[in-house]
Amino acid sequence: MRIAVLTSGGDAPGMNAAVRAVTRTAIYKGMEVMGVKKGFAGLMTGEFKKMCSRDVGSILSLGGTILLTARAPEFSSEEGINRALASLKKYQIDALVVIGGNGSQRGSNDLHKKGFPVVGIASTIDNDVYGTHSTIGFDTALNNAVGAIDKIRDTATSHQRVFVVEVMGRDRGILALHCGIAVGADCIVIPERSFNINQISEKIKGNFELGKKHFIVVLAEGAAKAEKFADALQLVSGIHASISVLGYLQRGGNPTFQDRFLATNFGVNSVQLIEQKKFGYIVGVQNNHVVHIPMEDVATNIKPIDENLFELQKYLCI
Amino acid sequence: MRIAVLTSGGDAPGMNAAVRAVTRTAIYKGMEVMGVKKGFAGLMTGEFKKMCSRDVGSILSLGGTILLTARAPEFSSEEGINRALASLKKYQIDALVVIGGNGSQRGSNDLHKKGFPVVGIASTIDNDVYGTHSTIGFDTALNNAVGAIDKIRDTATSHQRVFVVEVMGRDRGILALHCGIAVGADCIVIPERSFNINQISEKIKGNFELGKKHFIVVLAEGAAKAEKFADALQLVSGIHASISVLGYLQRGGNPTFQDRFLATNFGVNSVQLIEQKKFGYIVGVQNNHVVHIPMEDVATNIKPIDENLFELQKYLCI
Amino acid sequence: MRIAVLTSGGDAPGMNAAVRAVTRTAIYKGMEVMGVKKGFAGLMTGEFKKMCSRDVGSILSLGGTILLTARAPEFSSEEGINRALASLKKYQIDALVVIGGNGSQRGSNDLHKKGFPVVGIASTIDNDVYGTHSTIGFDTALNNAVGAIDKIRDTATSHQRVFVVEVMGRDRGILALHCGIAVGADCIVIPERSFNINQISEKIKGNFELGKKHFIVVLAEGAAKAEKFADALQLVSGIHASISVLGYLQRGGNPTFQDRFLATNFGVNSVQLIEQKKFGYIVGVQNNHVVHIPMEDVATNIKPIDENLFELQKYLCI
Amino acid sequence: MRIAVLTSGGDAPGMNAAVRAVTRTAIYKGMEVMGVKKGFAGLMTGEFKKMCSRDVGSILSLGGTILLTARAPEFSSEEGINRALASLKKYQIDALVVIGGNGSQRGSNDLHKKGFPVVGIASTIDNDVYGTHSTIGFDTALNNAVGAIDKIRDTATSHQRVFVVEVMGRDRGILALHCGIAVGADCIVIPERSFNINQISEKIKGNFELGKKHFIVVLAEGAAKAEKFADALQLVSGIHASISVLGYLQRGGNPTFQDRFLATNFGVNSVQLIEQKKFGYIVGVQNNHVVHIPMEDVATNIKPIDENLFELQKYLCI
Repeated sequence: MRIAVLTSGGDAPGMNAAVRAVTRTAIYKGMEVMGVKKGFAGLMTGEFKKMCSRDVGSILSLGGTILLTARAPEFSSEEGINRALASLKKYQIDALVVIGGNGSQRGSNDLHKKGFPVVGIASTIDNDVYGTHSTIGFDTALNNAVGAIDKIRDTATSHQRVFVVEVMGRDRGILALHCGIAVGADCIVIPERSFNINQISEKIKGNFELGKKHFIVVLAEGAAKAEKFADALQLVSGIHASISVLGYLQRGGNPTFQDRFLATNFGVNSVQLIEQKKFGYIVGVQNNHVVHIPMEDVATNIKPIDENLFELQKYLCI
Repeated sequence: MRIAVLTSGGDAPGMNAAVRAVTRTAIYKGMEVMGVKKGFAGLMTGEFKKMCSRDVGSILSLGGTILLTARAPEFSSEEGINRALASLKKYQIDALVVIGGNGSQRGSNDLHKKGFPVVGIASTIDNDVYGTHSTIGFDTALNNAVGAIDKIRDTATSHQRVFVVEVMGRDRGILALHCGIAVGADCIVIPERSFNINQISEKIKGNFELGKKHFIVVLAEGAAKAEKFADALQLVSGIHASISVLGYLQRGGNPTFQDRFLATNFGVNSVQLIEQKKFGYIVGVQNNHVVHIPMEDVATNIKPIDENLFELQKYLCI
Repeated sequence: MRIAVLTSGGDAPGMNAAVRAVTRTAIYKGMEVMGVKKGFAGLMTGEFKKMCSRDVGSILSLGGTILLTARAPEFSSEEGINRALASLKKYQIDALVVIGGNGSQRGSNDLHKKGFPVVGIASTIDNDVYGTHSTIGFDTALNNAVGAIDKIRDTATSHQRVFVVEVMGRDRGILALHCGIAVGADCIVIPERSFNINQISEKIKGNFELGKKHFIVVLAEGAAKAEKFADALQLVSGIHASISVLGYLQRGGNPTFQDRFLATNFGVNSVQLIEQKKFGYIVGVQNNHVVHIPMEDVATNIKPIDENLFELQKYLCI
Repeated sequence: MRIAVLTSGGDAPGMNAAVRAVTRTAIYKGMEVMGVKKGFAGLMTGEFKKMCSRDVGSILSLGGTILLTARAPEFSSEEGINRALASLKKYQIDALVVIGGNGSQRGSNDLHKKGFPVVGIASTIDNDVYGTHSTIGFDTALNNAVGAIDKIRDTATSHQRVFVVEVMGRDRGILALHCGIAVGADCIVIPERSFNINQISEKIKGNFELGKKHFIVVLAEGAAKAEKFADALQLVSGIHASISVLGYLQRGGNPTFQDRFLATNFGVNSVQLIEQKKFGYIVGVQNNHVVHIPMEDVATNIKPIDENLFELQKYLCI
């Protein structure tokens, strides 16, 4: 039996740990493993490379992905999928493991619907994949963001200043919401909820009157850009806010324990799924157990946010 | 209403985040909060101090515990408990929150059985509290250990050497097992399972023949001391191993996202329990939801290890 | 004898270590110490607070400044200086230690020229103070920037992308230049040197042809804003670059060894200067020895950049 | 022209950065570069490998050494040196760069005295090479130690305890002394100075009376083993101390800015020395400029410690 593995979409810390787990588990079970370079782009152009146990030595602790990743808009077309299927046939691949987030798993589903045996592994720093409590990369991204905001807080406190910190999350505020709780943000703004700049202005004034030395807004990029938000705050209330856009540093770096652990579990489990010929599922986690979510469900459902976290925050910013 | 809060047993990163959440949530709900210094020792000697919102400002990200902790063997005696009850009466405390691990929560249970309203919060780097998937401090300790072993691996690889790394865990191997998976340990030794030094010697030789450049044993201190283990290895097989005892650095440092998040949730929840007059429970987490475990269950049950993790490891060390 | 100490201008990691060293050394030598809150602003409004040994316990490892800092444009006026002198007289201060960068030390010089005994300590993440090889905060800021760019490189490599990373440095490129060498930047752009976008475009193409998987530009904010730079690159060459503005996270966080060590040496030395009644000097470092730079020299000279570093970089980006 | 490069002795963070700088600078200047595996051991057995620009891509930020290192006691014999010379002849090497500490540079000197063109690069976490202010690896080791002791201090403070922390330094206390200053150690014990356990006991008692919450001894392993030291303290004064042996984690991990910067400068400079046919020197740093120290001087002189640092410490532990 011969399987292929690829990483797709935005890179996420822990992807390498998943590639290692897939590769070694498959070899342990007597399969051959091919790595596909550059995600679906390399699947279409046929960039395959044989993977041995030593090829994945010491990648467990590295950020990014040794298999590389790339955008591949052509893949969503009928022609793109056919080119991919042709490559998979040419290299005599019996099953494919796709490590990536929502967009990538839609691609997995397209291949699956064409009848090709595919297993997905939920990996994205956004943690927005339906049906799984967490995804590979989320914990590292959170810790990166928390570490950066801890540093910014030193300056905010020293200068008794308002800071607007923009974190990743084009469509969703899951990262912003969790990160905001963990840094003790005074205000969390996410796309899933409207915000009122007047109320925020009142809260800022109130907090400084309480003797707090800083006011930190954690803002998901999808809710508003930091610069725009700060401009509005200035206009409405005359309050000046410094801004910081965390950007790409959130997605890199050595994966945390959680992401290595999740990635290792997901990787081993995906090969077990292949052994059992159970295809068309995304490997995720629920209740601390690995679960298998039908690709169709992932493609058609939206992961809800945990509304209770707003309740929590209310108690803490006093 | 007036509540008291204390931290007890070994310090764990995130204890301060829990103290902050307890304090602010209680104040938000109109309660008064007293901090007890030095755990049960200070409870007996009456070291109480009023806590305001500002007293817990900027402690969210600090390791250790601002309330201090201490050993208090006298507390297990009838007399000790009575002295504690007298202090609680003197300071007119209506309910007590105890942040700590197994030993500390046995103390909580003793007070509870005497009829005093107590709520516990599961906090220990060992993660050995029955009924909760995780405890405050475990994730930070794991990341500390993983970070240290990543560094040691640089030397192990550069010198093509065997390393025996001793991690915390006097009675239990939960930390060693998780940490071993996340660093790609070639061998994990824990108190819950016997080990065979001859088999380990064979595995070492086999791995170097496979072209691996290092062999890392992660050893829970309760299974064997690193020095003894290395001596036995030398005796049995003539293989020299370097040793490293990680020790106390595992328990300190800024808490990770997970520990801040858990601590904040636990802290808020413990005050809600008090509001509901639901006493005699430990606040923990199951299936990503906060749960309440009867103190009696915690005192009388042992948390099992996840045997599947050994299965995982088998596939990965090739 | 009674001295006062303040921190001024942008906060820098290690300022607290300097405050601790000033405070304890002065107390050791029998002086009284007053801390001035919010820099020159607090000097004018008289925000003084007595400092004891315990007040500076465990601040050695904290970023920011416990004495706070603030902008104080009024201080540059005759009236502002007179208000400051009045406060110093009111609190019976015999000498003042000013911890800060170029702008702050111009303020020190103003007080000095009015005859007040002042000693300065060179502290700014920009390392642009004339006459000293390094300043408190520079090493931590560099390590913060290097750590962030290491993470960004994971993504740059995984996506085979061009990245433009904007680092601090409104007027000077000293931080960008050093940081660029340490991260292996393919191109460093600083205000002190003109750049040619066409040449950079050619270099980008050349590097990818050599098989390099990323191209990283480290850009001092004073040379160009990252967004503008990326737009120009797109226009001239059609090459798309991702951007990252590191911003405030560079100035915060626990100080590194170097900054704690420098701050401790500078702090002790500033009190020795006061003992010797040697005023009007900035404490800095040359040839690994503490030096005293006349305030007038600092105010009137510009620190040169090390041109050899460009020579270095030439060899390394191949 | 063809040069060879090797790393020898204990691995040090930044060695890879030096290998990269040597390799790329030499290639830039039209030389061929061979990497020697496992230090002098590989030099004797002829483990040479051609190095290209891409081979040293992305190693700048990695700890350890990709060229590996090993003990080679045979090298000190006449026969060992002759075997090494034979390998160098066989591979037609015109000059050799040796990256390592005192012991390794004695080996360089042996080759040099035999007439082979050698250049050394000072690299050891001990910073005990005569004639250079710093060595590659020292700054990272210091920051590793400082970071670990910061964590231990959380526990020391929370438990109001005495801690004895043993840091690396078999013969010298340079690392212990610098590290002790930067963590605010209450007592620093190094091999170059005798210590009095009675005086230390008195100081411990005095400090706790002053209201300090911990007492931290930083101990160079060459002065006493932590366990022995703690036993003596217990015996003499009845004071219990917890111990921590930092060990190998000090030598690993991603190099800091300083070590990357130093390594890059040293690497480029060593190739310039070869170009100028200036052999028999170790590349080091003095007064922030690269210097060349005759190998004979390094072999016959001992680097002094900075006695002033003890003076500093006196003021700070109050």
